[in-house]
Amino acid sequence: MDIAERRKANPDHWRLASAIRALSMDAVEAANSGHPGMPMGMADVATVLFRNHLKFDASAPNWFDRDRFVLSAGHGSMLIYSLLHLTGYEQMSMDQIRNFRQWGAITAGHPEYGHVEGVETTTGPLGQGIATSVGMAIAEEAMRAQFGADLCNHKTWVIAGDGCLMEGISQEAIALAGHQKLKNLIVLWDNNDITIDGRVSLSDNTDQMKRFEASGWRVLACDGHDAADIDRALTDAASGADDRPVLVSCKTIIGYGSPKKQDSSGAHGSPLGAEEIVAARAAYGWESPAFIIPEHILSDWRAIGARGKSAREAWNARVDASANREEFARRISGEGSDRLAPTIAALKEQALSSKPKIATRRASEMVLEVVNPELPETLGGSADLTGSNNTKTKDLGIFTPENRTGRYIHYGIREHGMAAAMNGIWLHGGFRPYGGTFMCFTDYARGAMRLSALMGLPVVYVMTHDSIGLGEDGPTHQPVEHLAICRATPNTLTFRPCDLVETAEAWEIALSEDSSPSILALSRQNLPTLRETAGENLTAKGAYVLREASDTAKVVLMATGSEVEIAVAARDQLEAQGVPTRVVSVPSMELFRDQDVAYRSSVLPANTVRIAIEAAVRQPWEWLLLGERGREETSGFIGMTGFGASAPAPTLYKEFGITAEAAVAEARRLLG
Amino acid sequence: MDIAERRKANPDHWRLASAIRALSMDAVEAANSGHPGMPMGMADVATVLFRNHLKFDASAPNWFDRDRFVLSAGHGSMLIYSLLHLTGYEQMSMDQIRNFRQWGAITAGHPEYGHVEGVETTTGPLGQGIATSVGMAIAEEAMRAQFGADLCNHKTWVIAGDGCLMEGISQEAIALAGHQKLKNLIVLWDNNDITIDGRVSLSDNTDQMKRFEASGWRVLACDGHDAADIDRALTDAASGADDRPVLVSCKTIIGYGSPKKQDSSGAHGSPLGAEEIVAARAAYGWESPAFIIPEHILSDWRAIGARGKSAREAWNARVDASANREEFARRISGEGSDRLAPTIAALKEQALSSKPKIATRRASEMVLEVVNPELPETLGGSADLTGSNNTKTKDLGIFTPENRTGRYIHYGIREHGMAAAMNGIWLHGGFRPYGGTFMCFTDYARGAMRLSALMGLPVVYVMTHDSIGLGEDGPTHQPVEHLAICRATPNTLTFRPCDLVETAEAWEIALSEDSSPSILALSRQNLPTLRETAGENLTAKGAYVLREASDTAKVVLMATGSEVEIAVAARDQLEAQGVPTRVVSVPSMELFRDQDVAYRSSVLPANTVRIAIEAAVRQPWEWLLLGERGREETSGFIGMTGFGASAPAPTLYKEFGITAEAAVAEARRLLG
Repeated sequence: MDIAERRKANPDHWRLASAIRALSMDAVEAANSGHPGMPMGMADVATVLFRNHLKFDASAPNWFDRDRFVLSAGHGSMLIYSLLHLTGYEQMSMDQIRNFRQWGAITAGHPEYGHVEGVETTTGPLGQGIATSVGMAIAEEAMRAQFGADLCNHKTWVIAGDGCLMEGISQEAIALAGHQKLKNLIVLWDNNDITIDGRVSLSDNTDQMKRFEASGWRVLACDGHDAADIDRALTDAASGADDRPVLVSCKTIIGYGSPKKQDSSGAHGSPLGAEEIVAARAAYGWESPAFIIPEHILSDWRAIGARGKSAREAWNARVDASANREEFARRISGEGSDRLAPTIAALKEQALSSKPKIATRRASEMVLEVVNPELPETLGGSADLTGSNNTKTKDLGIFTPENRTGRYIHYGIREHGMAAAMNGIWLHGGFRPYGGTFMCFTDYARGAMRLSALMGLPVVYVMTHDSIGLGEDGPTHQPVEHLAICRATPNTLTFRPCDLVETAEAWEIALSEDSSPSILALSRQNLPTLRETAGENLTAKGAYVLREASDTAKVVLMATGSEVEIAVAARDQLEAQGVPTRVVSVPSMELFRDQDVAYRSSVLPANTVRIAIEAAVRQPWEWLLLGERGREETSGFIGMTGFGASAPAPTLYKEFGITAEAAVAEARRLLG
Repeated sequence: MDIAERRKANPDHWRLASAIRALSMDAVEAANSGHPGMPMGMADVATVLFRNHLKFDASAPNWFDRDRFVLSAGHGSMLIYSLLHLTGYEQMSMDQIRNFRQWGAITAGHPEYGHVEGVETTTGPLGQGIATSVGMAIAEEAMRAQFGADLCNHKTWVIAGDGCLMEGISQEAIALAGHQKLKNLIVLWDNNDITIDGRVSLSDNTDQMKRFEASGWRVLACDGHDAADIDRALTDAASGADDRPVLVSCKTIIGYGSPKKQDSSGAHGSPLGAEEIVAARAAYGWESPAFIIPEHILSDWRAIGARGKSAREAWNARVDASANREEFARRISGEGSDRLAPTIAALKEQALSSKPKIATRRASEMVLEVVNPELPETLGGSADLTGSNNTKTKDLGIFTPENRTGRYIHYGIREHGMAAAMNGIWLHGGFRPYGGTFMCFTDYARGAMRLSALMGLPVVYVMTHDSIGLGEDGPTHQPVEHLAICRATPNTLTFRPCDLVETAEAWEIALSEDSSPSILALSRQNLPTLRETAGENLTAKGAYVLREASDTAKVVLMATGSEVEIAVAARDQLEAQGVPTRVVSVPSMELFRDQDVAYRSSVLPANTVRIAIEAAVRQPWEWLLLGERGREETSGFIGMTGFGASAPAPTLYKEFGITAEAAVAEARRLLG
């Protein structure tokens, strides 16, 4: 069927879909930048989805029990912006559409979470959307299990492109979703056979249907430009025919309707040009000027936007009638728990009295052992390193298709998929996710960890084995640059606690956060309890005086995590030699940077020798060594200058010169 | 069949395989650390592979036409160390085995490339081995096409575990291999159904056979403890029955022979314990003491190690007889080309005369346009951003199953897979790979980029769209922390050239390197030619005076890439205001750090105001601002403090305050 025949066959649908196409072409043209081809290709599928299937109410974008809609192919942002405008989301005015990709507009080049209601997650880096949606679907199942289908019962719909499916993260996501039997997850594949470089066959011949089936998905297909066929497929997908997540292959033509550019990569990532837009409008039978939607079409779209109102009101009534309504409200608000502070306080007191010598990964487990029973919103997991990350506590139960009240997820050997799923769990609402792997494998999770930071999601990364202190596994497993990476990333709280007290404090901050992810870098090896006071959360100050000098300090030793023990030992030696020496623990550089100058200079006075000790690269330490009134002539660093090695941890510390003796020698050299 | 029956059925094989198992148990026990279960499970498969199939000569580990053997499941390192010792690799003495995982030994916890001959690539981070092997197989095909099957005709064998197959990178790898029809690539899957957390079914139900078939692989299966069945499968796999790569599912039992720990995660990652080792030895009928291999078994193994000698000698003869032998020798040595320097010199001269105003990504393309025809060893590609990365030159041709002489690879939307494949291409020998994506997507490739650095492989990453200068695509595509990440990573050369001259110089260094990867951070936006001299490669100094002050400098402006233009404009304003101002271009911090103090302080004199300008986070600049005799009171930074935004690039520079005016104002403030 050609376009003219399709128009004739289903004029109502065609008008609705043409509105998306026209807005997308116009906005990209006005911005002289953007991706028109994808919205033009998926307009029919999106129209059918919003018109007949998606549960939403444009007047209440944050209605908790709405279906989630994730545009994984984020470059097609004009698709979602058009839909939000047409269905009547208040924030998405036509002015915003006209200002697509301009400074201050909510219509960013790629959909940005937090800029505009209706955008459920930031997408653009390919594959993130589909992987994030897995977390949303997990959270939906878990909330339903905890609060009942009356309060939580909705689907997660994803539009993904060929690029999303080629990215490795997609395999982690679909295998996890298939394993977890997330039947409310439906992925609509924009199967247009085009990538930026040309036809998909330039780089890929994967049989995607077979691949998804292999990972436990139900697979369906439709003609992505035939409204009736799309509706049939989406109805089938939403039917819950069995317990598998569903892939719908939507055969589409990129840039559909553009005579010269459709079905080619020319329609992908640049404006069509005035002439081609005229031709496409003619093909659609679209006669309105740019950015003008005829009243009758807009009113049909607005009716679609109001379709979910009665369902929402019914849900509101069910919530009001629920015995759990207060806890449910707290949970979906993302608010912290008033149980947290006393629980942490008690553990800190206990730590001071028992002074355990334990790894901070074990300290983290001790925190979770007291926190998890008090905070039903935690949802833990590990990328197949449960026993090493110490992330599982006995009370949690395992989250499986058979046990949706379980609060521990075996994410599998899928660090990237885990991180993206955690983003999705938080975005969905109802839970505070945390997940573990080795610190070094932040490398694998980087793409999604950056999105945690960019979106401002307070997920918690439990990153154990945080230095050469892991020993024999060797340099592939020993982070040296990873603390620098985390600290260089905006809006990321990086914690490296030195003992149980600091670990408890870091967790307290992480679980109270509402707009930054936290990374806990934790040791494999045992460490003594060094803190001597429990009251105030000193970790919240970022750095503080852990051991005061016997007299006005001539030397200040700064350290984090497992190296604080070394700093304390070096101080003892220097003090024994008559050199007044202070030890400053620096559990979080970010939080120290947030303190006022008076506090910062009280911790790091000028005119002392300053030495930082951290089994990692020097880069993030420069500002504490040389800035903050430090001086090059009196600053030293004890740490790593290259990759690690395979040997027992004590040998590595000695061979790489990260010892109290080395710190003492450096101090004496700098004292002159 | 139980073990006793298997021993009886094939005693010769059992003795050989038992030697691997015994060494693996003994070494892990002695180290009190390591992974015995995998070598014990895969000993039979490895024995059959080395005995009957693998083309190698233990006396000449670097014979170019050997089959490559990649242990993707790198935690099972004792498997390969045992094989190397048993077959007679000179470096792998029994002392080294005894010192498994100890300081200074070549027997690191995970196999480390460069520590010992016979280890073809560093593995340990799961999935890297299989993805790297795809590059090896690509290089093998390409070398065969260029030099003929007489000189290059071998297979790449990989042992991969469940973890490798769960990592997302494996999907990128297998889809690329299937697309490219790499029929000489054979993956032996250690299908033991166990991960660290327990049974695979805790986190995965993927039908791996179906998944590989979906990506264009031939799939076979065998009983991984039945030598005859293994041999049948490996013979079939190696037969080249069709043009697909081959997966062989080897059904094995982890920790095979350990009565209490086999078939459980208890056998995975810790020593078996003395008692269990006794029991396992009894099961194997292995009576030798720890680390002792009976003479007749060792001699059988040594014969296996010598099996390939005649094939190697025949190959040597063919090489000697080849008309191409000199170029072939140069190519497989990895030596640079004497054509490079004059080619770069000519381009630099041309740049000075034409002074083009172009993006550095386009400058990079101009370099490739002159270099690629001169250097037949370049093998380019992009992760589906060919037109944006400017990585393809007309002469290259596309590398496809039908055209193996093509030198451009459409890697698909697979940044991680591309990076790992580039590692494999270099490791194989014969080519210098380069590949492009957006700078921001170094996030996706991090795992493999770290291995480039750890292994010291001079691959070249062409990373375009290197800042907010990319404009409207917004913060998901705008790197801000990525320069800091690259600079924090040991043994990584990070270049951010400011114009065509510096871009040519950076390429010259990158293509002359033999032990460090290079990252070229390149602009999307046009930049003027700023350099005024062409002779010396000033980029090799890392930083240099680009514009001298009119008098003794009171202000030094440092900048990289697209911000050097801003620094030059700021200098002009300051000079006009009577402030002598120097501009220092810093194309590579790493190389500047390598200069002697005299040079460094000649470029950055003390007692001046210092301002760095870079559209990225400040972290890596601290040492140039505050160290190197800089002072906090007189230092400033013009850059990013958070994520970017979506808007036209000029707007972003203005709104984020990265302008000549801001630099001038900061200079005046600091001058007091």
